[in-house]
Amino acid sequence: MRHILLVFVLVTVVLGCESNQESKLLISDIEQLNNAISEAKPGEVLVLKNGTYKNVLINFKANGEKNNPITLKAETNGEVIISGKSHLKFGGNYLAVKGLHFKNGYSPSDAVIEFRIDEEAIGNHCTVSDCVIEDFNKMHRDDSDRWVQFWGRHNTLENCYIAGKTNRGPTIRVDLKGNVHINNYHQIIGNHFGPKPPKGGPSGETIQIGDSYSSMSPSYTLVANNLFEECNGEVEIISSKTNFNEFRNNVFYKSEGSLVTRHGNYCKIDGNYFIGDGENKNIGGIRIINTGHWVTNNYFYNLKGKSFRSPLAVMNGIPKSPLNRYNQVTDVVVAYNTYVNCDAPWQFGVGTNISQKDVLPPSEIRSARPLRTIVANNVIYNEKGNETIVVEHDKADGVTFKSNAVNNQGVAFKGYEGIIAKSFSVEKVAPHILLPSSDLDIEPYQGFEFESISNDLFGNSRNQNNTIGAVISTEGTVPSILDKSKYGASWYSNEKGARAPQTINISVTDDIQSKIDKAESGDIILLEEGQHLVKSSIVINKHITIKANKKGSATLLYEGEADTPLLELHPKGFLNIENVSLKGANSQKAFASLKENMFTHFGLTVTHCDISDFNYVLKVYKESFAERITFSNTSISNCFNGLELSEETNDKGDYNTEYLTVENCTFNKVKQNVIDYYRGGYDESTIGGNLLVVNSTFTNCGAQEENNILLNHRGIINVNIVNNTFKNNPVNLVALLWGAKNNTHSGNTIINSGKIKVEENLKLKLMY
Amino acid sequence: MRHILLVFVLVTVVLGCESNQESKLLISDIEQLNNAISEAKPGEVLVLKNGTYKNVLINFKANGEKNNPITLKAETNGEVIISGKSHLKFGGNYLAVKGLHFKNGYSPSDAVIEFRIDEEAIGNHCTVSDCVIEDFNKMHRDDSDRWVQFWGRHNTLENCYIAGKTNRGPTIRVDLKGNVHINNYHQIIGNHFGPKPPKGGPSGETIQIGDSYSSMSPSYTLVANNLFEECNGEVEIISSKTNFNEFRNNVFYKSEGSLVTRHGNYCKIDGNYFIGDGENKNIGGIRIINTGHWVTNNYFYNLKGKSFRSPLAVMNGIPKSPLNRYNQVTDVVVAYNTYVNCDAPWQFGVGTNISQKDVLPPSEIRSARPLRTIVANNVIYNEKGNETIVVEHDKADGVTFKSNAVNNQGVAFKGYEGIIAKSFSVEKVAPHILLPSSDLDIEPYQGFEFESISNDLFGNSRNQNNTIGAVISTEGTVPSILDKSKYGASWYSNEKGARAPQTINISVTDDIQSKIDKAESGDIILLEEGQHLVKSSIVINKHITIKANKKGSATLLYEGEADTPLLELHPKGFLNIENVSLKGANSQKAFASLKENMFTHFGLTVTHCDISDFNYVLKVYKESFAERITFSNTSISNCFNGLELSEETNDKGDYNTEYLTVENCTFNKVKQNVIDYYRGGYDESTIGGNLLVVNSTFTNCGAQEENNILLNHRGIINVNIVNNTFKNNPVNLVALLWGAKNNTHSGNTIINSGKIKVEENLKLKLMY
Repeated sequence: MRHILLVFVLVTVVLGCESNQESKLLISDIEQLNNAISEAKPGEVLVLKNGTYKNVLINFKANGEKNNPITLKAETNGEVIISGKSHLKFGGNYLAVKGLHFKNGYSPSDAVIEFRIDEEAIGNHCTVSDCVIEDFNKMHRDDSDRWVQFWGRHNTLENCYIAGKTNRGPTIRVDLKGNVHINNYHQIIGNHFGPKPPKGGPSGETIQIGDSYSSMSPSYTLVANNLFEECNGEVEIISSKTNFNEFRNNVFYKSEGSLVTRHGNYCKIDGNYFIGDGENKNIGGIRIINTGHWVTNNYFYNLKGKSFRSPLAVMNGIPKSPLNRYNQVTDVVVAYNTYVNCDAPWQFGVGTNISQKDVLPPSEIRSARPLRTIVANNVIYNEKGNETIVVEHDKADGVTFKSNAVNNQGVAFKGYEGIIAKSFSVEKVAPHILLPSSDLDIEPYQGFEFESISNDLFGNSRNQNNTIGAVISTEGTVPSILDKSKYGASWYSNEKGARAPQTINISVTDDIQSKIDKAESGDIILLEEGQHLVKSSIVINKHITIKANKKGSATLLYEGEADTPLLELHPKGFLNIENVSLKGANSQKAFASLKENMFTHFGLTVTHCDISDFNYVLKVYKESFAERITFSNTSISNCFNGLELSEETNDKGDYNTEYLTVENCTFNKVKQNVIDYYRGGYDESTIGGNLLVVNSTFTNCGAQEENNILLNHRGIINVNIVNNTFKNNPVNLVALLWGAKNNTHSGNTIINSGKIKVEENLKLKLMY
Repeated sequence: MRHILLVFVLVTVVLGCESNQESKLLISDIEQLNNAISEAKPGEVLVLKNGTYKNVLINFKANGEKNNPITLKAETNGEVIISGKSHLKFGGNYLAVKGLHFKNGYSPSDAVIEFRIDEEAIGNHCTVSDCVIEDFNKMHRDDSDRWVQFWGRHNTLENCYIAGKTNRGPTIRVDLKGNVHINNYHQIIGNHFGPKPPKGGPSGETIQIGDSYSSMSPSYTLVANNLFEECNGEVEIISSKTNFNEFRNNVFYKSEGSLVTRHGNYCKIDGNYFIGDGENKNIGGIRIINTGHWVTNNYFYNLKGKSFRSPLAVMNGIPKSPLNRYNQVTDVVVAYNTYVNCDAPWQFGVGTNISQKDVLPPSEIRSARPLRTIVANNVIYNEKGNETIVVEHDKADGVTFKSNAVNNQGVAFKGYEGIIAKSFSVEKVAPHILLPSSDLDIEPYQGFEFESISNDLFGNSRNQNNTIGAVISTEGTVPSILDKSKYGASWYSNEKGARAPQTINISVTDDIQSKIDKAESGDIILLEEGQHLVKSSIVINKHITIKANKKGSATLLYEGEADTPLLELHPKGFLNIENVSLKGANSQKAFASLKENMFTHFGLTVTHCDISDFNYVLKVYKESFAERITFSNTSISNCFNGLELSEETNDKGDYNTEYLTVENCTFNKVKQNVIDYYRGGYDESTIGGNLLVVNSTFTNCGAQEENNILLNHRGIINVNIVNNTFKNNPVNLVALLWGAKNNTHSGNTIINSGKIKVEENLKLKLMY
């Protein structure tokens, strides 16, 4: 075997910016690669020939030296594709990997890239750079993995683009169980974390550093200069769970979540940008738990999140908290930050749940307020004055405010010593960056060790002419924080050119499926007037619009087998259907996800349709997830089941869609599961599930509903039932709302249909 | 006021080993001192004139400079006595105090010496050296204080002698609540911690570093080169509760307790000596809880403690432990230690209490076994072979043994891979230090970062000729670890010359009290034959023996008031009474402590006496404590109450005597509280209360005992009832034993007196 190596072309090249003398081996299959690795010497460069490598398990077990690493790289960065059941693992010192593209596959193990091979072979001083991992999801959402898993010490993930993880497990995780993994000084720098859709349940972090069991360990992981773009996996974008981590100069752009110091202590969160859109309340900032964190020089813009998702959320702890729950906040410093158009940026006592002491054990009650916390030298600017600047979910009596300025446009707010109302203007110094246009003339407070906050957000020294707020001077270069060329892989951009959608006309005799198969993502299938007979399920695996020109002018008449769906939604299948009548033969489903292998998301929007004579209108199977499912201006009649999204019954906080919206619809004679949308498990960190039922009419529905409730949404956190009419539905309850959560109802007309009941504290299974 | 300063004699002196130019101010009262402090400049030396300073509250609020401190010192070290209600507090930088003697008083505040004055005025870089604190106890045991309380950073307690604390609160405590107190690098070095008797309940540590609420904080406190002599306060001599503390080269000599990593992680315990007496099972070693500690180069000799008090006790943790309970042990290294004559030095899963799950909540059950723990390169020598070397209270399946050698004199023990039976001899290289006399020829295991164990116990480099065990070579100087001149204050020794006791003859007409008052501690009061009438309580406030030459030849007939004791035991009152008959008039007590102000211990030994016609034989009041109370060969009859030590009913783990012994006694017609000895509160860290009732006879007792139990000892951990006769006592139970603890009975004869019952799990109040 080893002799195969001898036939490799050994080339010595001189490369401009790399070491002068490198041995380059051109490798074209996994066997050659394994051999090359086994023989590699410090300084060698193993080059993978351009092409696709499928089902490759790369164990990079070798030892380079300081300043003389062993490098595994693509012949051309980005032209080496790793697909299928593949992974890359490091075991040894001073190893580097560059320029690989992971796509069209998934890891057969716990990680796509892992800095160890096994408990003995661990990577140290290893680097992954200029790589892309894209949609490399396991086939089932509940199958957990990580895409980059850190072990050992001094490993680096640099200038990579990583996006699209939807299965269980944080995208990046740093593990610290064992002395060989502590004091790790790992670096996660210059990466572009692209869009990550909501997971619909916990364990969807972009970065997790440690866990509660290693929360006592010193980590010293650095996360710096990364762009987080629409990282919406769950409420925690970054979950820091160990000590002494640093988060510097990252940009969080329209990301639904927060940087959270979930466990561990003494983190530094310095010089980051949190950019919202001024509307989305899921976009958060920094959420603080535990002791000794320093939040300095950060800039917050247009954030509208509240409570857990506040720009600054300081939580209540549990007295003598169990290891995996919430320690009290103490000794935290929040200094020199600037908040622009963030309404009420500071929220304290977040997560207080004293009122739930009847349904929760004492070890779950967050009643310990922050202690010895300093909030100083910050600037708040609200373009529109807000009545509240500081929200006290519980008393902020352990918080000291010093030398903070607020321009609230003269609108009165509850006063605190150390928060000074101040009139000043702001100017836009760069896109999304608005800063006070003049010195606010407030002497910065000199707290204990504040001299360590030596620079401002832009890197200016605070030694002279120091001011409050994140920036003391805009005279130097203002960073282009959203210039994507600064982040991620050099050869990859996630900015796709727009393509005009094509319209494909379908006559009543055409085979719809074959037309869709030929269509490109985004195209429109236009149904001619008349009745289109469909014999078997239409597969949707791309963005497709199916429409008729006029409401009701075209009918899809489904003659497929019982239990099969007229329209089957596959991973990446996003269907928009308009003006179409869907008619079944009572035994089939109108829409359904796959029963298995829904390795990533689907989506469904139904507008101006008539749906009748199905067994199910919509059936979403376990581990399937859609960010949005919307029915609007649609009538549903004579179906046995309505919209069923209730298979996530393991009560681990998972659910099947982030937003289920029913607006201007009519439901008539839907016998059961009219709406059945379930999330189980007491988990304060999934704040999801959103059900909106508005301006709709339900008549003669629920006759066979076993639990006698018309709209079932147990465990869903956000529910709004508004301006609907319920008439002659033979049930006890229209809905059972969870009062302690964001469940509301108003303006409904209920005739002969039971009532809407609110239960303050719903009893759910404890997850922790 | 300030002008008083002008009259001070300003002397500039040249001192050999101090800075060349010092300003010396001779100060003789607190007013002058206060003024001198308020005017002090860097480099000044404030000299307290020799003498006694009573009721002085010294606030040393000033600022010296690095290499130019402000010093407050005794004119002659040891000749300045601080007494009465006094304390010393530091507020400022670079301050030093030298040569003071704290005695005959107590602090009116929370501390005798404190490195802060208030929350604003904190000491940093301050030093206390060459001082003594002796018996400076609060008047009540439950009044808590510390004798040296650390705050701030870089403070030092050096070369001091500190002994005799009996009230609640650790002798030394380091506080970390607040960022100004973390990363403190305090030093506790070269001190002599003299005898500290058992406190009889928790909160009797000699040193406590942090608490559970600050257990996440980095402390970096150094405890080095100290002698701990008979520090018996409680089970924890040192309670380390924060991170990164170091314990180096300390000597623990006959100290009943252990060095415990109670909370916090990553401590270094290196090069310490734990010296036992080969008998006392209360003398412990190192007890490990939490993560990442390194136990290296330590020497353990003649230790007989088990379980919590093992030479090495590695505890079970509570899964997801509450903050103030027991985290699981992980990532601990125990390497290069030597154990001589310690029987079964390694005990794992200590504290497992799975069997108590019916009486304890899940958050109290220690079922989480140690993980990722390495025990390597250690040497064990047992002069007498022991069947067990490793005690597994719970499975040690998370422990890896490597390259350990055991000389068990050929006695078989349970085998483990990595523990090698080896024949070798030891030689005595210094008092208490026995080491292998030849190389054991076992290659040391090279664990992760073992190269950081760079030196051995004696300071020899391990770079070359490395061996297993604490010492690689005795060729250099072997330290005299018990040379007391190396520790504590230069001018003080706790080695008192022996004085021959004087015998004072007392005729029946003599006033006993006046003779005792004139006697010196240790003297003998010899009662002439006949009846000695006593009109009022005899006060015992020193070591006194009262005896007659022949049993029963002298009688103390008490005619004092009702409720008063014949013999009143005051603090420091240790009474030994022999051969005497004590007779009352039914309404008084034979022996009693003070009702109040028992600021330190008493003791009582009653031998060959007859006691009759009292209301109480012994009444010990709340907050009184005796290390030992013994009744032997004594008859007790016709008393309403027997021995009552049951006022510690706040259920915080306190009790009134460490050892209550009743041997070869007869009790007849004692109506209630025959023996009533109480400890309350579920507290696994007080392992105390010891009741021995042996070879005694109880007849016609307990007739008015309300709870129908003859011997009451609820909550006492160690009870042994052996070879007694119980006859015609109208009770249901002779005793109710606590099966889960060390409560045993054997060889008793019970006639018409109920029975002895064992209850496995006694239900007590949870303290935490």
